[in-house]
Amino acid sequence: MNRLVKAAFLVGTLATLTAAAPAWAQFAKPEAAVEYRQSAFTLIGNHMGRIKAQLDGGKTSLDAIRSSAALIDALKTLPFEAFVEGSGDVADSAAKPEIWTEREKFDKRAKEMQEKVTLLNAAARTGDLVAIRTAFGDTGKACKNCHEDYKKKK
Amino acid sequence: MNRLVKAAFLVGTLATLTAAAPAWAQFAKPEAAVEYRQSAFTLIGNHMGRIKAQLDGGKTSLDAIRSSAALIDALKTLPFEAFVEGSGDVADSAAKPEIWTEREKFDKRAKEMQEKVTLLNAAARTGDLVAIRTAFGDTGKACKNCHEDYKKKK
Repeated sequence: MNRLVKAAFLVGTLATLTAAAPAWAQFAKPEAAVEYRQSAFTLIGNHMGRIKAQLDGGKTSLDAIRSSAALIDALKTLPFEAFVEGSGDVADSAAKPEIWTEREKFDKRAKEMQEKVTLLNAAARTGDLVAIRTAFGDTGKACKNCHEDYKKKK
Repeated sequence: MNRLVKAAFLVGTLATLTAAAPAWAQFAKPEAAVEYRQSAFTLIGNHMGRIKAQLDGGKTSLDAIRSSAALIDALKTLPFEAFVEGSGDVADSAAKPEIWTEREKFDKRAKEMQEKVTLLNAAARTGDLVAIRTAFGDTGKACKNCHEDYKKKK
């Protein structure tokens, strides 16, 4: 290769590395990735529980539902940044190895959850409780679908 | 008390209990409160690190800074919902007992952090890197101030 071609090749390679970096480079070690995804799931789970409590309780606070739905919406992509290669064998992780062997199916499940959360947040904004109940049920099902296939039972 | 006064008193008490409930009622047990606040801090810490990496690196992505600043802003009040009474003695917690004996000072520190995060998020939206650096430094200091007084060293 002449110098110009070499330089162009190098720039191209660096650009690819840089573009690919963000998803992987946020975590110093596999344990940090596990802690990150578990943290996001903990907050999502807690706020799903809060919405459920509002829907099940006698007195429903739309503000509480909206606040939790907006937070879940803000968190919905976070866990999936952190299922990086090599983070399946960390002792504390409940991730099944199939996440990495059936990645496309796992990513599809993640996308389904995110779509349902988007609808839940939209329904919460309208304030229509029937729509909120439907969207909440759909979101819960999406969580469960993914857990059944990809989360180890305790 | 006559029946009307009794009823008014009861309604008032219930209203107080209901208003006070949300901060305490979200956690089934102290361990859940510890996990919740640690989860929020983990995500905040990770995204403070991401902003730092953008500011320190050669090529700064304003989109990455904005995304992290918005997330930290959405999370800034969460940990402080979870320093509930009785959650200081959980084995995994790094919370010092002073949080509960100097509650006003602790709450002031929390408020200072939240104000700095609000400014960081506002600066990120303007895109002015000098303002972002200042607000980021101030936020980091607010984190550190509170950790020095109220977080156990590992």
